[in-house]
Amino acid sequence: MKRFLDLADFSREEIIDLLALARRLEQHPEPRALAGKILGLVFFNPSLRTLASFQVGMTKLGGSSFVITPGQGTWQLESRVGAIMNGAAAEHVREGLPVLASYADALGIRAFAEGKDLRHDLAETNFKAMASVVDKPLINLESAVNHPCQALADWKTLDDIGMPQRAKFVLSWANHPRVTPIAVPAATVHMAAQRGMEVVVLRPEGYALPPEIMDKARAAAAASGGSVRETQDRADALTGAHVLYAKEWGSTTHYGDSAGDAALRANLTDWCVREDWFGPAAPDCKFMHCLPVRRNVAVADEVLDGPRSIVLREAHNRLTAQMAVLHRLLA
Amino acid sequence: MKRFLDLADFSREEIIDLLALARRLEQHPEPRALAGKILGLVFFNPSLRTLASFQVGMTKLGGSSFVITPGQGTWQLESRVGAIMNGAAAEHVREGLPVLASYADALGIRAFAEGKDLRHDLAETNFKAMASVVDKPLINLESAVNHPCQALADWKTLDDIGMPQRAKFVLSWANHPRVTPIAVPAATVHMAAQRGMEVVVLRPEGYALPPEIMDKARAAAAASGGSVRETQDRADALTGAHVLYAKEWGSTTHYGDSAGDAALRANLTDWCVREDWFGPAAPDCKFMHCLPVRRNVAVADEVLDGPRSIVLREAHNRLTAQMAVLHRLLA
Amino acid sequence: MKRFLDLADFSREEIIDLLALARRLEQHPEPRALAGKILGLVFFNPSLRTLASFQVGMTKLGGSSFVITPGQGTWQLESRVGAIMNGAAAEHVREGLPVLASYADALGIRAFAEGKDLRHDLAETNFKAMASVVDKPLINLESAVNHPCQALADWKTLDDIGMPQRAKFVLSWANHPRVTPIAVPAATVHMAAQRGMEVVVLRPEGYALPPEIMDKARAAAAASGGSVRETQDRADALTGAHVLYAKEWGSTTHYGDSAGDAALRANLTDWCVREDWFGPAAPDCKFMHCLPVRRNVAVADEVLDGPRSIVLREAHNRLTAQMAVLHRLLA
Repeated sequence: MKRFLDLADFSREEIIDLLALARRLEQHPEPRALAGKILGLVFFNPSLRTLASFQVGMTKLGGSSFVITPGQGTWQLESRVGAIMNGAAAEHVREGLPVLASYADALGIRAFAEGKDLRHDLAETNFKAMASVVDKPLINLESAVNHPCQALADWKTLDDIGMPQRAKFVLSWANHPRVTPIAVPAATVHMAAQRGMEVVVLRPEGYALPPEIMDKARAAAAASGGSVRETQDRADALTGAHVLYAKEWGSTTHYGDSAGDAALRANLTDWCVREDWFGPAAPDCKFMHCLPVRRNVAVADEVLDGPRSIVLREAHNRLTAQMAVLHRLLA
Repeated sequence: MKRFLDLADFSREEIIDLLALARRLEQHPEPRALAGKILGLVFFNPSLRTLASFQVGMTKLGGSSFVITPGQGTWQLESRVGAIMNGAAAEHVREGLPVLASYADALGIRAFAEGKDLRHDLAETNFKAMASVVDKPLINLESAVNHPCQALADWKTLDDIGMPQRAKFVLSWANHPRVTPIAVPAATVHMAAQRGMEVVVLRPEGYALPPEIMDKARAAAAASGGSVRETQDRADALTGAHVLYAKEWGSTTHYGDSAGDAALRANLTDWCVREDWFGPAAPDCKFMHCLPVRRNVAVADEVLDGPRSIVLREAHNRLTAQMAVLHRLLA
Repeated sequence: MKRFLDLADFSREEIIDLLALARRLEQHPEPRALAGKILGLVFFNPSLRTLASFQVGMTKLGGSSFVITPGQGTWQLESRVGAIMNGAAAEHVREGLPVLASYADALGIRAFAEGKDLRHDLAETNFKAMASVVDKPLINLESAVNHPCQALADWKTLDDIGMPQRAKFVLSWANHPRVTPIAVPAATVHMAAQRGMEVVVLRPEGYALPPEIMDKARAAAAASGGSVRETQDRADALTGAHVLYAKEWGSTTHYGDSAGDAALRANLTDWCVREDWFGPAAPDCKFMHCLPVRRNVAVADEVLDGPRSIVLREAHNRLTAQMAVLHRLLA
């Protein structure tokens, strides 16, 4: 394995294998496996879990890491090819990233969507430009439309709790005070499809995931024996559901138009997940969320603090799943 | 020891024991004592000594650490229970802290007073809410009205220089351009009382420490054979003093009212500790301050650069004292 | 070696020796050489290469490091002696730096020029005040008019590519949207002179380096058998050149006057290094720059992406050269 950028780059069997390694490292720690290895972490956007868990993961495997935060301690970095750099950015990623890669054994990069042009973001234009100048193992710490580390951790979480392969997995849109990216929903729908689940995307009008994302998930489902469909009907989606995975994301019909998006979501305040959503679901239906979560806007306290919630287990699996990725890339 | 949140949680003998461990680790380093152990450090407020010394302490004991700074590299964290999170904070401490704790073997948290409501701050409402969701060993890196790591370092400093148990210890208010918390004076008066000293709190009108703080210190003095009193009379306080510990803090009669506080302190510019303050003191009276200190506002250069000052020793003992805490919590 | 503050503090032979150590550590890593040693890194200004490479260098030698960024996570630090500290800075370097030094085995400090008073900056008033209160090994991570780590890395880069001692080395001014310090050009002209090269400083009117800088370089050239001259004539400078080292810096005739400087440089947009600059140069003339670089303002894409550019090698040598410095200071 040279890069960990997208679960879709791996077969279902390869992912299962990677998760077996994660489990092996949980049971049989290898505190010297990455002795002398260095991971460079570059955060163009804020982070809590990713920032902490990658540092801890390297430490637990005997390696180490450093963190670079452009715009904070380090100047801003330009990523547009051919830019005339007379603005705020003092350095181009074409220098900055190869330099950091030359100090490290692997790099991780987080760079969210620009959120202006859906085509541009779906094409991962920015992340691909950065990846193209890095000649070391590379990890996607969340890009415009992907978050493979979260997806891998979520897959492991489903395995940990014994969730059957064919269980019904509902990815539901949830409200949020601002526009947020489609990286996690895109990665989640693909992960559940690739795992072979019965996937239903529940979202209000204006929040359909782009056809490219849905088609990619359907292709994964076709290969794994799962299925993917979408609906606006909450009762339909949740009937018999085994997992409700909530996530906030921006309107795809008003992409790059935050005022238009805000007008849409102003009428969607009931898209805050409450316990009564689970009425038609399977009795032990689990609740998942990648975090961070806006309490009582996206999800009610009663759900997050209740017995269905496995959000802390998901977050802990960021560490255990990523340690397998690091081991595979660097050991 | 599961938590290090307040010197008052420990008997005088337990503190003496902890300081003996600190001294043992100075003389006989244990560079592998915490091998594989990870400390998560969460700073809601700025830091220099705490930030550096905890990282160094873990390293010197063979462990490691990571730093999370909400609002800087990580989003802001909400701590109010039941909050409807449609503001600046993207995540609640009820998720954020358990997640970080799940990656670490212990957490340290710094969260200053809100400085609006004295009751709220005296109750440590905010810190207690955070502590309640952390199931790993926890260290108070300075809360609304406590700073046990500073107090422990100061106790060790007094021991290091052979200051007798019954010596006269004057905690004096000092001026500052802005309102600052009462965490350090509260911790200091308690520490000196618990050590068994003759404690005098010297402060102008409007700056009396709250009765809860004074009563807690008096209880500690009763157990240790020390005493605690307060005065506005500088000559009275300093006569025969063996230690002058200066600290800036906000008015308790104008708590949460920065304009009222500013009006009060505008007339208190002579509360900048100068060499002539030491006239009535014991000849070798020492000068202490927790740092950071505003030179020539709170304390004159002549004092900080003079032979009485042991502020650098105090700061160095942040490291040596905390290493004992880390060893006790994690070894 | 107790301090690494200026290449001029060392003889040519001592630098050659240090670079031999750098090469030895590249070929024969010493992953335990600095076991237990801790480097404190204090950044008053942003950094990418220095920030990452010193952390990595310590790790690769078995040691560790911590980072302090005044004004970000830590409060601002005052450095003026005798200051009445009623402004933004909460702590003076006279406390802050000795405290950090007491936790560490060595300190590195970055503090750029104030850019107001050329005399003040040339005298390194600020850096010297800080260095005077640090009693541990100290590394200059870039001061007002010096950047010895960059100079050492550049010297190594010239050696790595087999550049003859007597080759023609052109340091050329390049344009930039804002005023930038003279630290790198000052360090570079001295390095090339000390290495024994034929040094030509090419710069437009208003951008001559101060006589003190040029005289210091000439003294180094006299000792090494090299030479130093300056010109505004690009063809003259580049004829037969073996190295073109580009760097942006502020006007010395309009020092501290950003409007005057901006008016000057508005007419100097052709001082963006393009491939046609190399017409009169030696055929295999190399291109150097310390980075960060403003693409298509200071240097055109065609040069940075072309075969002459050795800027990434320079940046990588920050790590290899600094590891020798750390080894010499701490092993």
